[in-house]
Amino acid sequence: MLHFDSDYMEGAHPEILKKLSEINFKKNPGYGMDAICESAREKIRAACGCPEGEVYFFVGGTQTNATVIRGLLRPFEGVLAADSGHISLHEAGAVEAGGHKVITIENREGKLCAEHVREYLLRFYGDENHAHMVRPGMVYISHPTEYGTLYTKQELEELSKVCREYKIPLYLDGARLSYALAAEGTDVNLKVIAENCNVFYIGGTKTGAMMGEAVVFPKPLEENFFTIVKQSGALLAKGWILGVQFDVLFTEELYLECGKNGIRTASMLRKGLKEKGYSFYIESPTNQIFVVLENTKMQELKAKVSFSFWEALDESHTVVRFATSWATQEEEIKELLNCL
Amino acid sequence: MLHFDSDYMEGAHPEILKKLSEINFKKNPGYGMDAICESAREKIRAACGCPEGEVYFFVGGTQTNATVIRGLLRPFEGVLAADSGHISLHEAGAVEAGGHKVITIENREGKLCAEHVREYLLRFYGDENHAHMVRPGMVYISHPTEYGTLYTKQELEELSKVCREYKIPLYLDGARLSYALAAEGTDVNLKVIAENCNVFYIGGTKTGAMMGEAVVFPKPLEENFFTIVKQSGALLAKGWILGVQFDVLFTEELYLECGKNGIRTASMLRKGLKEKGYSFYIESPTNQIFVVLENTKMQELKAKVSFSFWEALDESHTVVRFATSWATQEEEIKELLNCL
Amino acid sequence: MLHFDSDYMEGAHPEILKKLSEINFKKNPGYGMDAICESAREKIRAACGCPEGEVYFFVGGTQTNATVIRGLLRPFEGVLAADSGHISLHEAGAVEAGGHKVITIENREGKLCAEHVREYLLRFYGDENHAHMVRPGMVYISHPTEYGTLYTKQELEELSKVCREYKIPLYLDGARLSYALAAEGTDVNLKVIAENCNVFYIGGTKTGAMMGEAVVFPKPLEENFFTIVKQSGALLAKGWILGVQFDVLFTEELYLECGKNGIRTASMLRKGLKEKGYSFYIESPTNQIFVVLENTKMQELKAKVSFSFWEALDESHTVVRFATSWATQEEEIKELLNCL
Amino acid sequence: MLHFDSDYMEGAHPEILKKLSEINFKKNPGYGMDAICESAREKIRAACGCPEGEVYFFVGGTQTNATVIRGLLRPFEGVLAADSGHISLHEAGAVEAGGHKVITIENREGKLCAEHVREYLLRFYGDENHAHMVRPGMVYISHPTEYGTLYTKQELEELSKVCREYKIPLYLDGARLSYALAAEGTDVNLKVIAENCNVFYIGGTKTGAMMGEAVVFPKPLEENFFTIVKQSGALLAKGWILGVQFDVLFTEELYLECGKNGIRTASMLRKGLKEKGYSFYIESPTNQIFVVLENTKMQELKAKVSFSFWEALDESHTVVRFATSWATQEEEIKELLNCL
Repeated sequence: MLHFDSDYMEGAHPEILKKLSEINFKKNPGYGMDAICESAREKIRAACGCPEGEVYFFVGGTQTNATVIRGLLRPFEGVLAADSGHISLHEAGAVEAGGHKVITIENREGKLCAEHVREYLLRFYGDENHAHMVRPGMVYISHPTEYGTLYTKQELEELSKVCREYKIPLYLDGARLSYALAAEGTDVNLKVIAENCNVFYIGGTKTGAMMGEAVVFPKPLEENFFTIVKQSGALLAKGWILGVQFDVLFTEELYLECGKNGIRTASMLRKGLKEKGYSFYIESPTNQIFVVLENTKMQELKAKVSFSFWEALDESHTVVRFATSWATQEEEIKELLNCL
Repeated sequence: MLHFDSDYMEGAHPEILKKLSEINFKKNPGYGMDAICESAREKIRAACGCPEGEVYFFVGGTQTNATVIRGLLRPFEGVLAADSGHISLHEAGAVEAGGHKVITIENREGKLCAEHVREYLLRFYGDENHAHMVRPGMVYISHPTEYGTLYTKQELEELSKVCREYKIPLYLDGARLSYALAAEGTDVNLKVIAENCNVFYIGGTKTGAMMGEAVVFPKPLEENFFTIVKQSGALLAKGWILGVQFDVLFTEELYLECGKNGIRTASMLRKGLKEKGYSFYIESPTNQIFVVLENTKMQELKAKVSFSFWEALDESHTVVRFATSWATQEEEIKELLNCL
Repeated sequence: MLHFDSDYMEGAHPEILKKLSEINFKKNPGYGMDAICESAREKIRAACGCPEGEVYFFVGGTQTNATVIRGLLRPFEGVLAADSGHISLHEAGAVEAGGHKVITIENREGKLCAEHVREYLLRFYGDENHAHMVRPGMVYISHPTEYGTLYTKQELEELSKVCREYKIPLYLDGARLSYALAAEGTDVNLKVIAENCNVFYIGGTKTGAMMGEAVVFPKPLEENFFTIVKQSGALLAKGWILGVQFDVLFTEELYLECGKNGIRTASMLRKGLKEKGYSFYIESPTNQIFVVLENTKMQELKAKVSFSFWEALDESHTVVRFATSWATQEEEIKELLNCL
Repeated sequence: MLHFDSDYMEGAHPEILKKLSEINFKKNPGYGMDAICESAREKIRAACGCPEGEVYFFVGGTQTNATVIRGLLRPFEGVLAADSGHISLHEAGAVEAGGHKVITIENREGKLCAEHVREYLLRFYGDENHAHMVRPGMVYISHPTEYGTLYTKQELEELSKVCREYKIPLYLDGARLSYALAAEGTDVNLKVIAENCNVFYIGGTKTGAMMGEAVVFPKPLEENFFTIVKQSGALLAKGWILGVQFDVLFTEELYLECGKNGIRTASMLRKGLKEKGYSFYIESPTNQIFVVLENTKMQELKAKVSFSFWEALDESHTVVRFATSWATQEEEIKELLNCL
C-alpha cells in the first residue's frame, strides 16, 4: 500500500531523532527557557534576517493560529482571511472560540489579494455603521495556501503595504513553508517574509519535525505573549523538545533541504501525471497535487494507494489530493505512477 | 425636518406610557418574577397558540440574539444565517464574542432558502473532515429580513422540516415582526411561527414599546435559560417595565395595530414613489423602502429629510432607505412625497 | 403588605415620567447620538468635575460591569475584587463568560483594602511563576459595598495610589451611589470619585430612574468603547430613553435628593430598630439595613412584610435585609416599625 | 550542578525513544486514528478496568484541563476546585478564557474534602439567589495534589458520592499520577480511579513520556469530544507520537515502574533530610518534597543545586521544593544529601 494522504505521515528527520537521543538525559529547565531553544531561536533569527526578532515554539498549527490571533486582536476585532483559509474552514471554530470573527474574502487560487483587502477596508471605513461591525484587526494568509499556491514577493509587498496603511498586522501561516521556500521560481524567502509580515510561523510538523511550529515576530509586538501562550494551553513543559527540532532543522539548511525533497518528488509526480494525460484541478507549484480522477479509476486506485478526497467535480469525476513530503522516496512516486 | 431614518425614533405608544404611570409606585418583585410579566406571558402564549410555551423579556435585539445563540449552542457549534443577516453583519461580533461562528449562506432577497440550508448540511456531513469543522447547530432567520422581505408559510415549513431532520433549532429574529404580521397578503401569523420555529422573538423596540423584545420558546428547550440571561448581562432588574409594555401591546391586538400603521404609511409612500417614477432597489412589502436616488437629488433631499444611506449603486446613484413605523403620520408621508 | 426587599421595586421618579411623556413623539437618532444624551453627559461631566470625561449609558449593572471589564482588560488579565463583591458572587459568571478571572481578596466589612491589594500585587510580582498566572489588570470596588458600607476619601486615595503605581485602572461600581453620596458624614463626593477612579458608574436603576447606569471615564481610556458596548449587547437603540433619565436626575441635584430620601428613611428605621433592641449584622450608613431576627419573629413578620433573606446566623437567628429607596415613604417605615 | 527543580527535566524513557525510532518511517494516518493509538487505548482501558471507556491523547496538562472543562460544562457552570489547585492558580486563566469560573474551596493539605464540597452545594442550592450565581457543574481534584498529597480510596468514594448525588462529573487531574500509584500504602489504583471518576487523565509528561497525557472517560460522556479537542487547538496531527508513548508506558507496567523510581528516590531523600534534622512544610508521600531551609543555607545550596522556590516561611526561612522523577538516579540523591 502506498500513502500520499498528507505530509505528516512520518515521524521526524533522523538527525532530529539522533539529537533527541543524545540529549535525552541532559536536564533542561522548562517552558522554552533553555539553551537549546535559545540556540534554535538565534538560528531562526539569523535565517530570517531579524536580529531583534522574537521566536516562540508551538506544537501544532491550529493551536498556533488561535493563540496568535487571540493574543494580538482586541475583543471587537476580527481577522481577514481567504474563504478557503485554514482558519476559515478547518479549525473547528478555534478562532471564534477565542471570541473573534474570521471575516472571509473570496480567494483567488487560494490567495488573498491586496486589492480585495483594500476594497474591504475602504468599504468598511466608508460604511457609516462601521462602529456596529467587527473591525478588521489583522490579515491572515497562508503560504503555500491550502491549494498549494504561492504568493509572489510583489503580492506580499502589496499586502504588507495595505496592512501598514491601516496599521493592522499581517500574519502568515507557514504550516508548509518549506515547500514554498523550495519551490522553483519563487522570489519569496524567509527574509522577504520577515520584512513584510508582522508575525509568521515556520511549520515543522509537515517538514522533518516530529511536531512543532516556530512563531516569529520580526519585531517585538506583544510583550505578554508568553502568558497568552500559557493561557491558551499551548506552552509545552519540555520546551526544549521543540527547540532541539528547530535547532537541527536550521542547521546547514536542513529545513530547506526537506522542502526540496517534497518539491522534487512532487515535480516527478506532476510530470508523470501530465504525461499520462491527467488534468489538474489547480496548478500548484508545491507539494500538494490536485488531480481530477474518473470515479471508476479512483475506486480502482484506492485498493493500492491512500490519498485525500478533495471534492466531487461532477457526477463521474472527483478531485483528489496527493501530497509528497520531506520523506517521500522517488521509488514511491514511480510505484504510484505505475498504478495510475 | 422630516425623519425617516428608522423605526425606533419615537418613545412608546401612549397606552404604554399611561400604564407605566399608573403602576409607577406599585412595588414589584424583580427579574420578571412579577404578576405583570406573568400576565404578558400569558397573553403572548395565547396569541402564539402555545399554552406551554416559555417567554422571556429582553431589552434589545443584539442582546437577545447573542443570548439565545450562546444559550442553545454547544461550544463547537455555529449558527447558519444569510450573509445579509443582522448577526452576520451588524452586531459587532456579538455571536463570535460568545464563542460561536456565524456560518453564512448567500441570501436570496435577504432570505435563507431551505434548499441552501439542506445543501450546506448535506455537504457538511458528506465531508469526511467535518469533525474538524464548525458544526451547524442552529438556523437563524429574520422575518422581515434586513431587506424588508418576508418568508411565506411554505418557506417557513420547509426550513422547519430541514431543521427537524437535522435536529437543530430554527430561530426567528422578529425585530420588526409586527410589520411582517401586518403586511398585505402574508400567510404567516404568530401561530404559524410558533409551529415552525423552536424559538423566536417578538420585537417591541421598533413597534410601540419604549424598548423590549419577547423571546418565545413554543416548547420548553433550556431549563437554565434564566441564568444564561443573567450571565449575558441581559436580565433587567425591573423586569416588569418590559412586561407591562408587552402586556399593553398584546391587549386588543395593539401590537398588530402598530404594525398596520407602519404598513399603511409605507404603502402610501411606496405608491407615491412609484407615481413619481422612482425605482426600487428591492421590492419589500413591509415598512422599509429601499429607493434609488440620483446623487444630486439625494443631496438636495438631505436638507429637508433624514434617511439612511444603504449603499452606492453606481457613480451617480445611491440606494437609500426610508422607514415608516407604528408612529408615522400620513401627513409626514405627504410632506416627504412633496420633497421628492 | 409592606415591601422592603430592595431599592428597585418602583418605576421612576415622576419628573422622569413627565419628561418621557413630553418628548415621546420627538424623533431622536439612535444609539445615544442625540442631543438629550449629550445634555445629560454635559451635566454629569460638570457634576464630576471632569470636562473632558466620557460618559456612556447602560441599562443595568451586570451588563455594565461585564462590558467595562472585558473592554479594558487584555485576555490574560483578571480583575481584583472583594470576595463579597457583586462580580464575585451575583453576576452568574458574567466576567468569566467574557474570559476573565475575578481574583478575590477577603473583604473587610465589604470593602477592599489598599493594603491587601498592594500585598497581593507584591506577592504576585514577587512570585517567579507569575507569568503562568492571571495578571491583575484592574481593581473593582463598589461604593456603597454589597454590605452598604462606604469607603472614606482616604481609602479611595490609597487604592488609587496603588493602582497608579501598578498602572492598572481603578473601577468603582456605583449601583447605589446616590445613597453613598447622601450618607451622613461621608467625605466622598462625585469629584473625589472622578479624581481617584479611572472609570466608575453612577447607578440610576436603584435611584429614581426606570433603569440606567451612567459609566464615566474621567479621562478618555478606550476609544473603541462604543463598539465594545455594541458587541456586548449593551447598546440601547433608543439611547435617549436613558439619556433623558440622567438629564432629569442631574438637574437641580435630583439624584442627590433621591439618595437623601433613602438615607433619611433608612436612618428612621435604624433608629427604631435600635430602640426596639434589635442588633445589626453590620453597621452600614446607607440604605441597606442588615438586622438579626429571631426565626420565629422572622416567620411572623413575613405575613406582613417582604424583605430579603441574607444568611442564617445560627440555629435560631437569621440575618435579613431591609432596603429603603428614593421612593420610600416615612409612613412605610412607621408601619414597618409597628410590625417589629 | 544537580537539578531537582521538577520532574519534567529529562526527555523520554529509552524504550519510548527506541520505539519512536523503529516506527519513524512507518506511515500513519493523522489525528489519533491509527493502530498504535488504538493499541495504547486498549491497554489503558484494560489497566483501568473499563472496557467501554474512551481515551484521548493530549500534549500537556493545562491544555487537557482547559479542554475537558470547557467541553463538559454548560456556559453558566463553573468548576469546583481546591484553592491550591493547578487550575486555580497556575494555568494563567485558561479555564476562565474558556468562559468558566473556577470556584475555589479552601484546601486541606492540598485536597478537596467531600464534606466541603457537599457544604458548598447545599449552601448554593439553599441560597434563594442561586439562579443569579455560577452553578457548580464539575468537581476538579488532582492526585497527587499540588502539595504531593494523596486521596485515600474512601475520600475518592465520598467525593464520587456527592458528585453522583448532584449529578456533576468528578474530574481527576493525574499530571503526576504514576507517583500516586506507586506511593507506599496507597489504596488507590487505576481501577479505583476509573470507578469513582467520570473523567481523569494519566500524566505522561512527568513520567517517562517525552510529552503526553491520556484522558480517560470510563464511560462515554461526550460524543463530540474529538471536535472540542480540535477546536481547543489540542489535536495533534501526528497523534501516534502520543499513542506510541502510552503504548510503551502501558506495556509490562512501565508506567508504574517509572513511578516507583520517583518514589524510591524521593524516599531516600526524605529519609536523608530527616536524619539531617530538616523539617518539612508538608508531609507528602510522593515525589515532591517541601523542605524548610534557612535562607543562608538556601543561598549556599543554590551554587550547587537547582530547585524550586515555594514560598517565604518567615524572615529567615524559605520553603523549597525538590522533585524526583522516573529518571532520578540514586547517585544524585547521595550527592544532594552531601550538599545539605
